[in-house]
Amino acid sequence: MKDKEQINLKIQKNKELVDKLVNIGNNAIIQLKEFQNPSVNIPVRTLSNVYFDEKARLLRLGNSTSERSYFNLAQAKSFMQTMLVASKLREVLERGSAVGLRQLFYMSKGGIQGTKENTFDLQKECDPIVEDIEGVLKCLREEMGVEAERKGILAGDIKLMDSGDEIDCSRLGSSGYGIPSIVEKGTIDFIDCKAESILVVEKAQTWSTLNHDKFWKKNKCLILTGKGQPARGDRRMLARLHRELDLPVYIFTDMDIWGYYIYSVYKQGSINLAHFSENAAVPDAKFLGFKMSDVEKYKIPKEHLIPMNKGDYKRINEISNYDWFKEKKEWQKEFKELVKFSNKIEQDALIGKGLDFMSRTYLPEKIQNRDWIE
Amino acid sequence: MKDKEQINLKIQKNKELVDKLVNIGNNAIIQLKEFQNPSVNIPVRTLSNVYFDEKARLLRLGNSTSERSYFNLAQAKSFMQTMLVASKLREVLERGSAVGLRQLFYMSKGGIQGTKENTFDLQKECDPIVEDIEGVLKCLREEMGVEAERKGILAGDIKLMDSGDEIDCSRLGSSGYGIPSIVEKGTIDFIDCKAESILVVEKAQTWSTLNHDKFWKKNKCLILTGKGQPARGDRRMLARLHRELDLPVYIFTDMDIWGYYIYSVYKQGSINLAHFSENAAVPDAKFLGFKMSDVEKYKIPKEHLIPMNKGDYKRINEISNYDWFKEKKEWQKEFKELVKFSNKIEQDALIGKGLDFMSRTYLPEKIQNRDWIE
Repeated sequence: MKDKEQINLKIQKNKELVDKLVNIGNNAIIQLKEFQNPSVNIPVRTLSNVYFDEKARLLRLGNSTSERSYFNLAQAKSFMQTMLVASKLREVLERGSAVGLRQLFYMSKGGIQGTKENTFDLQKECDPIVEDIEGVLKCLREEMGVEAERKGILAGDIKLMDSGDEIDCSRLGSSGYGIPSIVEKGTIDFIDCKAESILVVEKAQTWSTLNHDKFWKKNKCLILTGKGQPARGDRRMLARLHRELDLPVYIFTDMDIWGYYIYSVYKQGSINLAHFSENAAVPDAKFLGFKMSDVEKYKIPKEHLIPMNKGDYKRINEISNYDWFKEKKEWQKEFKELVKFSNKIEQDALIGKGLDFMSRTYLPEKIQNRDWIE
Repeated sequence: MKDKEQINLKIQKNKELVDKLVNIGNNAIIQLKEFQNPSVNIPVRTLSNVYFDEKARLLRLGNSTSERSYFNLAQAKSFMQTMLVASKLREVLERGSAVGLRQLFYMSKGGIQGTKENTFDLQKECDPIVEDIEGVLKCLREEMGVEAERKGILAGDIKLMDSGDEIDCSRLGSSGYGIPSIVEKGTIDFIDCKAESILVVEKAQTWSTLNHDKFWKKNKCLILTGKGQPARGDRRMLARLHRELDLPVYIFTDMDIWGYYIYSVYKQGSINLAHFSENAAVPDAKFLGFKMSDVEKYKIPKEHLIPMNKGDYKRINEISNYDWFKEKKEWQKEFKELVKFSNKIEQDALIGKGLDFMSRTYLPEKIQNRDWIE
C-alpha cells in the first residue's frame, strides 16, 4: 500500500462516519418538525447487557438500548451533550485530525448562554458520551480520530505503513515500534510480514530482555508488550495482526491472578469495554506461562516466591467464576493449585536461572512442547 | 558511525567499567590480607550533600562520603550486598546484556548458607546499592547495562544509530521514536541532524497533536515528551541532544506548579538524583509556557480554568524557595501572580481555540517573540 492509497482510504472512511454523525442531528431535526420529542437510542453498556458469546468465545454487548430524549428533565442535559460531542467529532473527522479524550472534553466544555450551567464540568461526564456515540455509530472512537493513552511496544520482522511512513519493525534497535493509540486501517497498514507467530509478554522489561537477545529473530516471531494491562491500541493491534496475518498468539505473564487476568483481557475482552471486544479479542490466544507446573519443572528457588495476600485470593475467587474460565478444567485446576501454593512468581524471577535462560530455554521449550493452556 | 564501530565502542567502555568493579573486590582482598577492615567509600546522597552549583547552574552532589565496612555489625550486610551487586553488574557487563532493576534484584536475591537470612528481601534495598555503586565508579547505571522504566517519545529530522540499526526519526509515522532507558554513547549515537532546536512538551497528547500536525517539519525542530515527570533516559537523551548537537531547548508545560517543576527537573536536575544531573541537566533550557501572561494574551475562557487546591499552594511555596528559583525576579513574579490567579490551565485547553491553534499560532508566536522565562 502506498502513501496516497493510505490517505484516500482514510478520507473515504472519515466521510462515511461524518454522514452517520450528521444523521444523528438530522433525525432530531425531523422529529422536531413533526412535533415529536427528539431522541437518540443508545446501546446499554452495563453488566446486564454484557454476555459471553460461547460460539465466538468473546465478550459481547447485547441488543438493549435506552432512549435519550430532549423533552425529559432527567435526559435533556445528556441529550444536549450527545449532540454537542457528535458535532465536535464531526469537526475532528472533517479536518482529518486526531485529538485526545481530554482535548475533546475541552472542545466540548463551555458555558450555556443565559444560565450558570456548563455543558460539561468534568471529563468523566464526557468520556462515556464518546462511548455512547461509538455504540450508536457502531464504530470505534479510534476511527473517529480520538486518541487515548498509548503504552505498548512491538518488534520483529514486519513492515508496516504508519501515516504515510514505511516502518521496518526489525530495524528499530533497542527502542522498538511504539504502538500508537489509533491503529485502524488507513492509519496503520501491514505491508510485509515474515514472522510466523506473536509472543505477548506482560512486562516492558521482559520485552526489553527478549528484544536485546533478538528473540524475535531467532524464533521468527513478533514480540509485543502492553506493559501490564494493555491500552486499547495494543489490543486492537494484536487482534489485527492475528486476524489479518493469521499469526498464532502466545501470552506470557507473571504467575499470579493479575497476570492471568491480563491474558483473559487479550483473549476474551473486558466487561467494561465489551463493545470493543469484537474488534480486539483474540479467542485463540494460548497461555504459555508462568504456570504452576513450571515451578517444579524449572526449579524456581523458594527465595523467589512472593506470598499471596488477601486481595489475590479474593480475585482468584472472582475470576475463576467468570463464564470463560468456569467450564475449563485445565484452568480450574490451575486456580486450585495456585491457591494451595499460596505464592506468586514474577517473570523477572527467571533471570535467576541465567541471563538468557528465558529467551534461550524457557520460552522456546514451552512453545516446542506445546506446554500451554488454551 | 557504523554498526561495527558502535559495537566496538561499547565493548571498550564495558571493559573499563568491569576493571573498576573488579577493583572494588580486589581492594577488599588486599585489605583483608593486610589484616585491615575491608571497606568501600560511598558518596553520600542525602540532602546534606546536595547543592546548587551556581556557576554550572545545576544540582550537584558534594564530596562527602561514608565508609561502609565489613567488620561492623551495622554495615556488614550492606557491605556484603554492595560486593554482591557489584559482582552481578560485572556479569551483566561481561555478557554485554541489559537487565532491569527488578531483574538485578532477583539476580542478587538468595539465601545465605547456614542462616535463615536472605541477601535481599525487597527491591527497595537493592536499588540504592546500585546508586551507591554508580557513585563509587562515577558512572551511570545505564552505562552498566541496567535499565529502568522508559516513557518518552521523540520525532523530527534526526538520524540516529540505535544498537546497530539506523533510525530516521522523521519517518516514524504516528508512533515516533520511543526513547529507550539506556541512551549512552555506543548504544545510541547521532548520525545526522537537520533540526535546529528541541521543543519539550509535558504531555503525550500534546506531543501527539504536534506530531500529527508535523510541527517538527514546519518548525525545523525535534519534539520530545517525557509524559509528565520524565524518566532518566528522557532527561539524558535531551541533555545529549542539547550538548552534542548544540540545539537550544524550549519547554512547554501546563500552567501549574507541577508543570513548572517538570521544567525545573529538565533544567537543573532533581534533589534525589543529584548525582545524575551533571549528565542530564540542561541549564540553558527556556520555559515557553504556559505562562500567566498567556492567559490574557490568548483569551483563555474562564470555563477552561481549574481552581487550585491546598496541595498546589503548598508546593508553590516550597518550589519558589528553591535556590534556583529564589534569585530570579521573573520567576518570583510568575509564582506570585499564579497564587493570586488561583487557577491552573492545562496544555489541552488550547484546543478550545481551534484544532491547530497550538501548532500554528501559539507555539511559533512564542518562539518568534522570545516570549519565555529563562
